[in-house]
Amino acid sequence: MINIAILGYGTVGSGVVEVLETNKKSIDIKAGEELFIKYVLDLKEFPGTSIESKLTKRFEDIIEDDSVEVIVEVMGGLNPAYDFVKTALLKGKSVVTSNKELVARYGPELLEIARNKNINFLFEASVGGGIPIIRPLNKSLTADEIYEITGILNGTTNYILSKMSREGLNFEDVLKEAQELGFAERNPEADIEGYDACRKIAILSSLAYGMHVNFEEIHTEGITKVRLKDLEYAKKLGYQVKLLGISKKINEKAYAMVAPMMISNNHPLSNVHDVFNAIFIKGNVIGDVMFYGSGAGKLPTASAVVADVVDAVKHLDKNIITHWYSKEMNLMSLEEVPSQLFIALEGHGYQDIIEQVFGKVSYIQSDDETVFITEKSTEGELKEKITQLTQVHQVKVTSTIRIEKD
Amino acid sequence: MINIAILGYGTVGSGVVEVLETNKKSIDIKAGEELFIKYVLDLKEFPGTSIESKLTKRFEDIIEDDSVEVIVEVMGGLNPAYDFVKTALLKGKSVVTSNKELVARYGPELLEIARNKNINFLFEASVGGGIPIIRPLNKSLTADEIYEITGILNGTTNYILSKMSREGLNFEDVLKEAQELGFAERNPEADIEGYDACRKIAILSSLAYGMHVNFEEIHTEGITKVRLKDLEYAKKLGYQVKLLGISKKINEKAYAMVAPMMISNNHPLSNVHDVFNAIFIKGNVIGDVMFYGSGAGKLPTASAVVADVVDAVKHLDKNIITHWYSKEMNLMSLEEVPSQLFIALEGHGYQDIIEQVFGKVSYIQSDDETVFITEKSTEGELKEKITQLTQVHQVKVTSTIRIEKD
Repeated sequence: MINIAILGYGTVGSGVVEVLETNKKSIDIKAGEELFIKYVLDLKEFPGTSIESKLTKRFEDIIEDDSVEVIVEVMGGLNPAYDFVKTALLKGKSVVTSNKELVARYGPELLEIARNKNINFLFEASVGGGIPIIRPLNKSLTADEIYEITGILNGTTNYILSKMSREGLNFEDVLKEAQELGFAERNPEADIEGYDACRKIAILSSLAYGMHVNFEEIHTEGITKVRLKDLEYAKKLGYQVKLLGISKKINEKAYAMVAPMMISNNHPLSNVHDVFNAIFIKGNVIGDVMFYGSGAGKLPTASAVVADVVDAVKHLDKNIITHWYSKEMNLMSLEEVPSQLFIALEGHGYQDIIEQVFGKVSYIQSDDETVFITEKSTEGELKEKITQLTQVHQVKVTSTIRIEKD
Repeated sequence: MINIAILGYGTVGSGVVEVLETNKKSIDIKAGEELFIKYVLDLKEFPGTSIESKLTKRFEDIIEDDSVEVIVEVMGGLNPAYDFVKTALLKGKSVVTSNKELVARYGPELLEIARNKNINFLFEASVGGGIPIIRPLNKSLTADEIYEITGILNGTTNYILSKMSREGLNFEDVLKEAQELGFAERNPEADIEGYDACRKIAILSSLAYGMHVNFEEIHTEGITKVRLKDLEYAKKLGYQVKLLGISKKINEKAYAMVAPMMISNNHPLSNVHDVFNAIFIKGNVIGDVMFYGSGAGKLPTASAVVADVVDAVKHLDKNIITHWYSKEMNLMSLEEVPSQLFIALEGHGYQDIIEQVFGKVSYIQSDDETVFITEKSTEGELKEKITQLTQVHQVKVTSTIRIEKD
């Protein structure tokens, strides 16, 4: 029997208990051991639940109990999660977490402690909810050098964009409805501003490249400026607008970015709607591969946490090497990053000016705006040309969206 | 340093050598050891290649060399592959294979030998080419009880159906062109009759359910009878026709089948075109998850083989438990299987007869055929009703295709 402790009995924590109870028989067979929840740490009381007798408010009860071998951290946030996890690892207890803030910021340090102690720090649930992506990156794509990751990494924003596009609604209206239905938080900033996706693409990039990609250096834009109009232009052009986290390695340089982007209807990511997430990866021998599933939600996320618990139990005295080291990866400056833009201008009659500034472009026209797509260039050059449009020619730019996948 | 031997220097075998050479540095880091190809077994000579000095025609050279710890079987076929693999495992050497015939037929026996010897028998490349699917089933979806698998498991047939649909060509013409381009074999039977997909869905079902699903008991139909007309009807109805391998568990019963089926354009599998493969899985806690990528090809398949070699090297004295035991799974008889059909009849004026036999149906009409979709029923009942149409009412049925995903 293996004793485990769960830190936090919120959505994910209660999901972990539910999954361990629902599939107890098959999980114990696959773990090769009976899993027993010995403690649940939470400041609240949960009378009448199955974990009532296991509740404690004191982390010390757990850390000082040598019979506890695996700790599940599902509290979220950095404090006290970071202290608890670090202390547990230093005590020789394996840790499983769903906490993307913790992993993005302290991943290399916590992985190194686990490596030195010959135990494990596992975090499948920190990216893509239930989708297996961390373990495949670590264990399945080992023959490849990965040079590109493109992900729909946030369910809330994908739900909002899908619903805007399908039902012809504005951002604000859909956000409000999503909040009422519980698909968006009361304070939705982390999702709609792209911060959540930013941490996730940082984690994936770090694992893919084996160096630390600092999430604070990733250029991040949210979806608050995406207009219904833009989604309609995209449709006419054969594109979908998605909030993408992207990361590319070009020779020895790399860049990462989170922003709303247009992808072609021919691309497998374009068919990922509503709260679903997907991660599309390019490797130098495997070619293209994509992982798709529920990017959030109590049970899918708990499924990933429990799968990590099973793996931790099967490797109690063997570190599953995770190639993510402290050395920081130098990212390209935004100006150097390859780019191609969809641009919308207020009014008509700018064809000559546009061609004068941008050279060759592709056109469509609308009622009260001029819209066009630039040739491929760099962020820096395109920004300069837009400045020419607005400063020299006094044209009002009403929207710009990157074209990611033709 | 770990010595490995490769049995067979055909397409996959030469791909494995190429991958090991191309990504040597990163692969050795991930394996934690230098990998060295000590032998390549082949009856042919390959003068001027990097493996010229390693070639042997005698399996004994390899099996009697105690310094060889991992053997890669990429010869294909059952003889002598089965003898070689079994002998190697009994000698305590881990085996990696891409051979779906071998795995579908002898999987449980070979896994048991590996389990008893505390070594590994790994076969990621046997299903879905480069797509990570065997390891995710074994290691990532461990918290779930999987109750449904639907896969586009054969690249050749998916290429043919995609091209027929996109370019309005007949089966025979596309097959001929695919053979000329090397996308289809000279003898294409294993692909177009569904035998290849049948072995793959048998392997996936066995792993998912933990029992042996005998591929010989799986009802298997190929794509040779799919008419261009059927693809056009499907399009009008909002469907795609795909050769699907499906497997479902309903309570304690299960069924598996390979056949061309219609799936809705809203389903993620409908967007999997050309030589790409994808496997869509439903679990009782994770919900829906899908894995997508190149289902065949030299380098993608070799990528999966080499990833298995890395895993074998990291677990030289530790069996990675694979829950697939010899006990045979009882499959439902075909008659009991739930079904829904698209049916095409020659000529017009059958509406009354159709409603008399089938009750409520959905219609579309064409120039010279009557086509309709039945309600959900069972294979047995629908077969009986079709017999009524043809025998009692003397109507000629020109095509039937199952509707799988609405």
